[in-house]
Amino acid sequence: MFELDERLRADTAEVVTLGLSIVLLMNDRTLPWLILVPQAPGLRELYDLNVSGRAVMMDEIALASRVMAQVYKPDKLNVANLGNIVPQLHVHIVARRVGDRAWPGPVWGAPGGQPYTGEGLEAALSALRAVFRNQGR
Amino acid sequence: MFELDERLRADTAEVVTLGLSIVLLMNDRTLPWLILVPQAPGLRELYDLNVSGRAVMMDEIALASRVMAQVYKPDKLNVANLGNIVPQLHVHIVARRVGDRAWPGPVWGAPGGQPYTGEGLEAALSALRAVFRNQGR
Repeated sequence: MFELDERLRADTAEVVTLGLSIVLLMNDRTLPWLILVPQAPGLRELYDLNVSGRAVMMDEIALASRVMAQVYKPDKLNVANLGNIVPQLHVHIVARRVGDRAWPGPVWGAPGGQPYTGEGLEAALSALRAVFRNQGR
Repeated sequence: MFELDERLRADTAEVVTLGLSIVLLMNDRTLPWLILVPQAPGLRELYDLNVSGRAVMMDEIALASRVMAQVYKPDKLNVANLGNIVPQLHVHIVARRVGDRAWPGPVWGAPGGQPYTGEGLEAALSALRAVFRNQGR
C-alpha cells in the first residue's frame, strides 16, 4: 500500500492526481513549487520504477512542467529528485525567476520561505487545477 | 548542429556517448557527479524533447543512475535538471553519501570542490566506462 510520507504531507497541499503521481503544491508563496510522488510503495530511486513506469513518470513530469510554465511564466524550471531528507521517491518542479529568493542557486535549504495565506493557497490550487485539466485533454 | 556548452566542456571529461546523450564526469574528486547532455540543438527544458526523446532520456538517466549506484554505492542519488546558469538542457546525476561535503543539502553552489589528479581522473573514467559497457548489454 502506498502511503504519502508525513513530511511531504505536512509541507504541501494536494493539487491533482495523475495516472501514476499525486501532485502536491509546496506551501511556500515565495516560489511556485510542485512535488510529484508516484503512488507505489517502496520507491526510492527513479530506476525503482520499471521501464513503462519511468515513461509515465517522465510524461507526468513534462505535463506538470508545462502547467508550471503556463501558470507562472518562469525563466527556468528546476526539476529534481533528491531525497536526501525524505527518502520516498518524489520529484520537485520549481518555477524559477531571475532574482527569486534563491536565484541562481538551488532552492533546497535556501532561507526565506513563507507559507501561503488561506486565500492565496486556494487561488494557486484553482489556477493550477484549471491548467492541469486543459493540458490533460 | 548540437554543440556542447563551453562551461560544461570546461568543467568535465567525457565518459561515453549513449544513443541520445553525451555523458560527462564533473571534474570534482570530492563528489561522484555525472552530467547527461542530450545531443540535439536548442533544448532548454525536458518538455522540449518529444515524447520518444523523453522516454530515451529517462532510460539513459536510469542507466547512468544504475552505473553510479554500482560504482560508488551511494546512500542516495540526486538527479536534477536545473539550468539556472547553463541554459543548455543537461541532467546532473550525483552520488551522495551521508557526510559528504554538502550533505544533506544540494551540491550546486556548495563550497569545497577539488579537481581530480590526472591519474585519479583516468581511474574514474575507466571504472565508469567498464560498468556502462556491462549495463548496456
